[in-house]
Amino acid sequence: MDFKKHIATIQDFPKKGILFRDITPLMANGEVFKVACKEMADFAKEVQAEVVVGPESRGFIFGCPVAYELGIGFVPVRKPGKLPRETVSIQYDLEYGSNELHMHEDGITPKQKVLIVDDLLATGGTVEATIKMVEKMGGEVVGCVFLIELEDLKGRELIKNYNVKTLIKY
Amino acid sequence: MDFKKHIATIQDFPKKGILFRDITPLMANGEVFKVACKEMADFAKEVQAEVVVGPESRGFIFGCPVAYELGIGFVPVRKPGKLPRETVSIQYDLEYGSNELHMHEDGITPKQKVLIVDDLLATGGTVEATIKMVEKMGGEVVGCVFLIELEDLKGRELIKNYNVKTLIKY
Repeated sequence: MDFKKHIATIQDFPKKGILFRDITPLMANGEVFKVACKEMADFAKEVQAEVVVGPESRGFIFGCPVAYELGIGFVPVRKPGKLPRETVSIQYDLEYGSNELHMHEDGITPKQKVLIVDDLLATGGTVEATIKMVEKMGGEVVGCVFLIELEDLKGRELIKNYNVKTLIKY
Repeated sequence: MDFKKHIATIQDFPKKGILFRDITPLMANGEVFKVACKEMADFAKEVQAEVVVGPESRGFIFGCPVAYELGIGFVPVRKPGKLPRETVSIQYDLEYGSNELHMHEDGITPKQKVLIVDDLLATGGTVEATIKMVEKMGGEVVGCVFLIELEDLKGRELIKNYNVKTLIKY
């Protein structure tokens, strides 16, 4: 399926010089959204994922249908102040600014096979931070899947020791 | 299924006096998460939903699997500054503070049958605001489904003219 024709490209958003890839037309098309989630779910089965981890909020959009399709759990990665129980956390740099992410400290059990799902692989900062938190809890990252990869930003190099799949490349 | 035993209750979060219902244990249990999403999807079929609308970010957690199950689109409701194209927006009061929400102005087509999905029906402010945006675009709200209803907060009264389903009541 030609997913690209369902992505809108917006100049200078959220700030000047950024070419923003808008996934909302893809999500709004039920057939296309289903195929995209299904391809991610097929990858999840292939790597024998036991749990899906996704960063808020766009990681929820694809990660939750993948977890649903496999009948496995979904564990959210959230910004500070959102998770009510004890967390592990990490600070990292991202494409425009810096960020801090949290997971519940009992979110992943030791040796659990984890698939990380997000909409976008850009510089790789978010996924690298997520991997660190998962591994701190003893989880095994068996794969990372993204709807879109921005190849110029070389995020894939940051996670070159992991099994990475992306559905659309720019 | 007894969903309640998979909800953690946290005192004084996010601030003193609030009893927070933490849905992350339910989400982390693949079987329970699947059944919860499936019950929402059954309701979506019953009301003949053509598109799912969900507020960020916890509305994505249940709304996206429901859209995936039915093979229909998902349209996000987001906070200011997140959607790159022209939006409709609304300001409203919520349980702790006030908020402003946006949807892309082409998110819903006239006469489209819309199901609104979120994790929590509390005061009803978020869903009422979402209904107003959907109706401004000419959509028909055929149902609203929530994982949890906090009955004391009487959110259901605000949306008493709509078909509302909730899976857990406190």
